[in-house]
Amino acid sequence: MTGKREFPLAQVYGLLEPGPVVLVTTARAGRANVMPMSWHTMMEFVPPLVGCVVSSLNHTFEILRATGECALNVPTMELAKKVVACGNASGRSVDKLKTFSLTPVAASVVKAPLIAECYANLECKVVDRKLVTKYNFFVLEVVKAWIDPRRKRPRTIHHQGEGVFLVPGRMLNLPSPKTSFLTT
Amino acid sequence: MTGKREFPLAQVYGLLEPGPVVLVTTARAGRANVMPMSWHTMMEFVPPLVGCVVSSLNHTFEILRATGECALNVPTMELAKKVVACGNASGRSVDKLKTFSLTPVAASVVKAPLIAECYANLECKVVDRKLVTKYNFFVLEVVKAWIDPRRKRPRTIHHQGEGVFLVPGRMLNLPSPKTSFLTT
Repeated sequence: MTGKREFPLAQVYGLLEPGPVVLVTTARAGRANVMPMSWHTMMEFVPPLVGCVVSSLNHTFEILRATGECALNVPTMELAKKVVACGNASGRSVDKLKTFSLTPVAASVVKAPLIAECYANLECKVVDRKLVTKYNFFVLEVVKAWIDPRRKRPRTIHHQGEGVFLVPGRMLNLPSPKTSFLTT
Repeated sequence: MTGKREFPLAQVYGLLEPGPVVLVTTARAGRANVMPMSWHTMMEFVPPLVGCVVSSLNHTFEILRATGECALNVPTMELAKKVVACGNASGRSVDKLKTFSLTPVAASVVKAPLIAECYANLECKVVDRKLVTKYNFFVLEVVKAWIDPRRKRPRTIHHQGEGVFLVPGRMLNLPSPKTSFLTT
C-alpha cells in the first residue's frame, strides 16, 4: 500500500501508548465510514489489545457492533483539519472519505478500509463486548499492522478538548532496564 | 495544597485525553506507593470515568484491588527522571515517594496521597471490576480534582516505549461546533 510495510504486532503499543487521535474506519455492505477517536488505551502487548469508547450515538458504533471489525488509522498534523471535519459530519448522510479526500485502501484481514494518508494503520477485530452496553467500550485485537517507514518522527495529534490539539515536539530518551517502564 | 485549586470534574477529560503518563498513588495501612502508568483512557465526561490497566505483577495492583482507591497525578517533563525511577523500583521493598523526593499531600476523599510536584491530581474510586481478572483493567471514577492554576502550558510526557517520551510542542487550535469532536 503506497509505500507501507507490515509492522511487527509486538511494537504496536508504541504507536498508541502516547495517546494520539486515531481515525476509525468501518465498512458494511460496501459502504465505508470514518470517525476520529481519542478515547483508547493499550490493554496488552501481544497480541496487541486496544480498549476504546465509541459513543452509541455514532454511526460507527452500529457498524462496529454489527461487523466486529474496524481499522485504526493514525493521522499526523497535516491531516488535522480533515480529522476535525470527519468529527463534524455523520456517515449516515455523508461519504466522509470521499468528501474529505481521504484515500481508502483495501485491508488484508478486515473489510474496513485503511486510510492511505495516515502514517500507520491497524486492522482490528472486536474480541470483548462485556463493557459495550454500559460504557460503549470495545476491546479490539490488532491482527495486522502497517506503517510508512519513511516517516521517522510523525507529528501525531493529541486532543485536549474543544478543538485544541497538542503536537509532540521534544523527545526525551531515558533508557530503562525494562522494555516497559510501567511496572511496580 | 501548595497553590493547587479544585478543578471542575467536567473538565477532567482534557487532562487525560491527550495521553500523558500519570503517577498512580495508592495507600494501605498508612504506607503509600506510587507507579507510572500510561495505559489509560477516558470513558465518560461526567462523572469522569477513567479505564486503566495495572499489571497484576505490580504492588499497586494488590493495593488498588484491596482498597478500591487511588490518585492519578499528572507529572510534567521536569519530573521525567523520577517517573522512570518510580517504574524501576518496587513498592514492596522501597518507599518510593521518600526515595525519589516526591512530596505526599493528604487527599480530601481518598487515602492515597497526592503528589505535590505534579501539576494536576485526580482522586479516584474503583467503580467497575468486571475486566480486572481477564485484563487487569479497572474503571475509576474521578471524585475530586486539583490543578496548579499557575501552569499554563504544562509539558506532559507521553511514553512511546523503551524509555522514549514525547513532549507536547506546538498547539493546534481548530475550533469545532461541538465540545467534543469525537462524534459520528
